[in-house]
Amino acid sequence: MIQTKGFAAYDATSDLKPYDFERRDVGANDVKIEILYCGICHSDLHHVKGEWGEILYPSVPGHEIVGRVVQVGAEVKKFKEGDMAGVGCFVDSCRHCHSCREGLEQYCENGFVATYGGQAKDGSAPTQGGYSNNIVVDEQYVLRVPMNMDLSRVAPLLCAGITTYSPIREWKIGEGHKVGIVGLGGLGHMAVKIAASKGADVTVLSTSPEKAKDAHELGAHNFANTRDKDTVKSMVNTFDFIINTVSAPHDYNMYMNMLKRDGTMILLGAPPAPAEIMAGNLLFKRRRLVGSLIGGIAETQEMLDYCATHNILSDVEVIPIDYVNEAYERMVKGDVKYRFVIDMASLK
Amino acid sequence: MIQTKGFAAYDATSDLKPYDFERRDVGANDVKIEILYCGICHSDLHHVKGEWGEILYPSVPGHEIVGRVVQVGAEVKKFKEGDMAGVGCFVDSCRHCHSCREGLEQYCENGFVATYGGQAKDGSAPTQGGYSNNIVVDEQYVLRVPMNMDLSRVAPLLCAGITTYSPIREWKIGEGHKVGIVGLGGLGHMAVKIAASKGADVTVLSTSPEKAKDAHELGAHNFANTRDKDTVKSMVNTFDFIINTVSAPHDYNMYMNMLKRDGTMILLGAPPAPAEIMAGNLLFKRRRLVGSLIGGIAETQEMLDYCATHNILSDVEVIPIDYVNEAYERMVKGDVKYRFVIDMASLK
Repeated sequence: MIQTKGFAAYDATSDLKPYDFERRDVGANDVKIEILYCGICHSDLHHVKGEWGEILYPSVPGHEIVGRVVQVGAEVKKFKEGDMAGVGCFVDSCRHCHSCREGLEQYCENGFVATYGGQAKDGSAPTQGGYSNNIVVDEQYVLRVPMNMDLSRVAPLLCAGITTYSPIREWKIGEGHKVGIVGLGGLGHMAVKIAASKGADVTVLSTSPEKAKDAHELGAHNFANTRDKDTVKSMVNTFDFIINTVSAPHDYNMYMNMLKRDGTMILLGAPPAPAEIMAGNLLFKRRRLVGSLIGGIAETQEMLDYCATHNILSDVEVIPIDYVNEAYERMVKGDVKYRFVIDMASLK
Repeated sequence: MIQTKGFAAYDATSDLKPYDFERRDVGANDVKIEILYCGICHSDLHHVKGEWGEILYPSVPGHEIVGRVVQVGAEVKKFKEGDMAGVGCFVDSCRHCHSCREGLEQYCENGFVATYGGQAKDGSAPTQGGYSNNIVVDEQYVLRVPMNMDLSRVAPLLCAGITTYSPIREWKIGEGHKVGIVGLGGLGHMAVKIAASKGADVTVLSTSPEKAKDAHELGAHNFANTRDKDTVKSMVNTFDFIINTVSAPHDYNMYMNMLKRDGTMILLGAPPAPAEIMAGNLLFKRRRLVGSLIGGIAETQEMLDYCATHNILSDVEVIPIDYVNEAYERMVKGDVKYRFVIDMASLK
């Protein structure tokens, strides 16, 4: 077994603390990665607090992982020692259902193995995530990270990046489309960058007028304060797509009404309470409300290559690991531009 | 002006009663139709009761109209005296917005002119519907009814038929698709017939086991009692499409979970209360929730021609006009198979 150091939640209420644990030995198809950076996703917090269901403690979160390949199994073909590699939200899936065969492992009909809190195929549970100094993953679930990329800024691409890239790809969002982005956080700022890079006309829809300058710097063409009634009124029936990244309860119908006929609102966040949708808002303009969940391995690779080519990176605040609890507090308040990323060199 | 006899609501609570009124003279582009049959749609009842907003009384409902052309204006090209013709939910629209130009007049950006309760372009309001002995409509908004069709059974195609045909066409529902139909009423029974005719595998999803025999006779391949928990469980992740015709509040999430990955639920009914949708049910299978509203003139014509070719007609109970109030009471209780149609010969 491989001795690993990390930071774990020991229960739902205490701070994360150091945790020493073991990972499986490197199997024939496995890659061992020395983790250099790991992004902090809001999901990490939901998970360790048990807000998405009971979990096994101690639990090491983190699913925006980049690092250096330090060992490969005998059968590994895609990687060699010294390569840069990434791991996202899952580390395995059934591999035989139609979704896995289509490269949409995130929708695995038998459930993917989450990077943390999951049940590995060898029976070990819970899987432990990326707030740690190494990880061992089957090469099929490891991404190649182009060598020219700033690794700390790549880490959030493995979740925030692919979560926004995948629907933009699926719905062919680009030139000629007017796109609204709701919520300018970790996901939202990536949605702005990626949608703008595809040639779409991007408007940030926000309740915080002070974000206007940032929105433009990130690449948005327009900023709209949705607390202003006249502004909202002027946007009715104007968007082809709205990418809604908000995972707190909110007024979906206001945004729905901003869609043109045949327009589509893509939901990326799943609040615990139901979304209250006026069916009439769908019927009278033949609008669509759809969901999207992270992305498959192949499209995640495509996204990394696309971001390398187009120089798209996350805006991050790099922190040492003992700052993680304070980072959680700031994240809850939305006080981060736009993703915390742990520098794993700080983990002694 | 043209003297017209009809049945109207005089207020929100009383029975419909005879009403004599005037229609405009036949203009250069108008067709005058002697109405032979008019279907009774649940919308008629919502309208006359003022449940969809205040209305002007007296109001003559009815938007499933078929009859004989008895007069045409000087410029009319599509029709001649003696032709069979139909009129659906609207009798005009702005004609210049992008939806009108695309033949999707039902989504007219400036609002279509409803067949009843609408504001005609000449300023006359409210428009009066098909529970009457004649109607005058611009030929662009009149449908040709193939001569070989049973007219009493054609009438409901003008609303129930096109409302279900349009999304089946738009989403290319047909061979290889597993389709669930929620609600076996006026819309639902047409959805079964049309979806089955397109080659889809059709399942009626119903809380009334006694409807199983009818469902099969209408062309459904399967019937599922959704009050049975094991049945519901066995249908999770199985449908490509669900056509939801219910306009009363209900559990949308149960049906949503029956959709496969990338499956689509099409809403045709708009309850006054919001639909409570768990966003997670959309995200985790990349499902879609969409709306659809009646259909445009061109696709309504296509639908009528398709139904003539495939011998698709509504199942109706033909009634005299003085039975209309009792028919309303029975309709509310769901006691109709599957549409009441008024024989206008009964209107003296």
